[in-house]
Amino acid sequence: MTCPVIDLAQQLIKRPSLSPDDAGCQAIMIARLKALGFTIEPMNFGDTQNFWAWRGEGKTLAFAGHTDVVPVGDESRWINPPFEPAIRDGMLFGRGAADMKGSLAAMVVAAERFVAANPHHRGRLAFLITSDEEANATYGTVKVVEALMARQERLDYCLVGEPSSTERVGDVVKNGRRGSMTANLHIHGVQGHVAYPHLADNPVHRALPALAELAATEWDQGNDFFPPTSMQIANVQAGTGSNNVIPGEFFVQFNFRFSTELTDELIKQRVQALLEKHQLRYTIEWKISGQPFLTARGELVDAVVKAVRHYSEISPTLETTGGTSDGRFIAQMGAQVVELGPVNATIHKINECVSAADLQLLSRMYQRIMDQLIA
Amino acid sequence: MTCPVIDLAQQLIKRPSLSPDDAGCQAIMIARLKALGFTIEPMNFGDTQNFWAWRGEGKTLAFAGHTDVVPVGDESRWINPPFEPAIRDGMLFGRGAADMKGSLAAMVVAAERFVAANPHHRGRLAFLITSDEEANATYGTVKVVEALMARQERLDYCLVGEPSSTERVGDVVKNGRRGSMTANLHIHGVQGHVAYPHLADNPVHRALPALAELAATEWDQGNDFFPPTSMQIANVQAGTGSNNVIPGEFFVQFNFRFSTELTDELIKQRVQALLEKHQLRYTIEWKISGQPFLTARGELVDAVVKAVRHYSEISPTLETTGGTSDGRFIAQMGAQVVELGPVNATIHKINECVSAADLQLLSRMYQRIMDQLIA
Repeated sequence: MTCPVIDLAQQLIKRPSLSPDDAGCQAIMIARLKALGFTIEPMNFGDTQNFWAWRGEGKTLAFAGHTDVVPVGDESRWINPPFEPAIRDGMLFGRGAADMKGSLAAMVVAAERFVAANPHHRGRLAFLITSDEEANATYGTVKVVEALMARQERLDYCLVGEPSSTERVGDVVKNGRRGSMTANLHIHGVQGHVAYPHLADNPVHRALPALAELAATEWDQGNDFFPPTSMQIANVQAGTGSNNVIPGEFFVQFNFRFSTELTDELIKQRVQALLEKHQLRYTIEWKISGQPFLTARGELVDAVVKAVRHYSEISPTLETTGGTSDGRFIAQMGAQVVELGPVNATIHKINECVSAADLQLLSRMYQRIMDQLIA
Repeated sequence: MTCPVIDLAQQLIKRPSLSPDDAGCQAIMIARLKALGFTIEPMNFGDTQNFWAWRGEGKTLAFAGHTDVVPVGDESRWINPPFEPAIRDGMLFGRGAADMKGSLAAMVVAAERFVAANPHHRGRLAFLITSDEEANATYGTVKVVEALMARQERLDYCLVGEPSSTERVGDVVKNGRRGSMTANLHIHGVQGHVAYPHLADNPVHRALPALAELAATEWDQGNDFFPPTSMQIANVQAGTGSNNVIPGEFFVQFNFRFSTELTDELIKQRVQALLEKHQLRYTIEWKISGQPFLTARGELVDAVVKAVRHYSEISPTLETTGGTSDGRFIAQMGAQVVELGPVNATIHKINECVSAADLQLLSRMYQRIMDQLIA
């Protein structure tokens, strides 16, 4: 392969970097960035390998990404071994090809070309790379951001390489993400024999009207940037397994994906008011996975839109849908954050793959964004 | 111990007859009945030992019972080893003392005394004994009843020795039982990621209004003999365990205890109409554990009431509450069926026990019922 983007992507795919194992990916990236004159700062925490690298000074544009991948699933169903990259019909196959080793290769090659053309660029170019975005994400980007914020590190623009596109590279970019919050609800009753219901208190019966109301609630109507907040019950469990025992407790786990129209506190208040209204005996624990964030129109969004338009005939759609990403942590630094990466159709699946031509285009788009912001 | 009832009860308790193992109990009973001139017919099916025994001819009164016991639980918590019967403060301790080896001993001794006094009794006296009432009950009384019905065996009255009493022997007798039926309901949806609810179909959300209506339904108001029909959700399960996956299927198991105001078919129709109304995609399987049965006032109930009154100052309460018993099978033979046994406060528990005096009274009550019906 003569294309440096595809060549580097293949080198990275060969490393079986199952979260949080980096498996040598970052060493490859670091060697390339060092050769360009980057200062490298390893920032490892717990089981996770991270690095922060920078070149130049002033307004800072950082590329953010992760070297870890999700498990391969049933390996026998891959047409090609998942850690032996191969190109078929223009598609690069391998675990991580789309999420997101292809993006990492596009970033590094874009930086190489940009520095060659602009050895004395006026802004600062940086990389924030982690080996745990897919699993717990406890010791990854969130910790690096904490350390950078503690020393008032500057970050103006951040491009996250997550696969944002749906049909061709750049058709969708993410300029924000919904918040995510999970509730673990335990409804308490009194266990007993089904033949003697007056001696028991069935927590499932008691909770059903409240849960029906919870599921039917309209939380907000979204706004220009966000779809309406959505609540989904993910897990329910009650009962001993026996058909003649009234359960003593009912567990319900539900997750909110919420817009900037709401806050985590407002959601908690509304849920708890609903549970109180139905006079349930309960305990509830909340876990916030991420606050919602939004990067409205501005220099970064404009630069991304122009770069995509330059290399394809399409204008990207700005979206905030989908899951969470490490962008939620980086946004806390006050940076403008946009996610631009390849097509996500096969991510986390058997036979993950990405268009080789799209990766080459993506690298050019990244380079053109640098040209506009820090050349 | 000089009392023959307590002596026989202790002999039976010493046999660790965990369902469906008879552990030699029936051999003891058979030896005693043979000595009285009973004809013995072993009717073993599958893993279960049963016998049918009779003496005389004509109108038939059968005693029904089981030799098997439930597990002992944590043996270290018994004040006395569960299979080493002992009397403390007038209470006979041991697994099966109340449920129902005490009753079996009372029946056998009552038969001995009755035959001694009425060697040429005009009716037929019978025993229907099984070693599996507590576990699956698949090869026990139900099979014996099938065999007896196939040959048109006569059964007019049946006394079941189940511990029916609540504070003293005879304060409660059961002249019927509710039916029991279980539904295994699977509600089908489409699994997906919580971030993309429009691509999924959450079966929990979809089912909640239907289940709330199911739990709020009044099925009937009961009647003179039965409490209202009751429905209890015993088990629910949905979800993969992950908080970001919308479940694809929702399992709900519920049990009906139903009166003679309803039939199993009527209940099925009403439940299925409710599910259809809510436009659910579902599959449902029903399992009928027993049809309801009722023995209204008549010769057997009258004889039981008189016998109890004769030996205590109380009039027994006739009830149809509580779980099921083998009476449900015997009632299909067209027999009048009444359950009369000792106090059930400790059955299936650690330190199961029964009043020795109550067992002696119970044996006299059984004898007096024979006197009235077949002497």
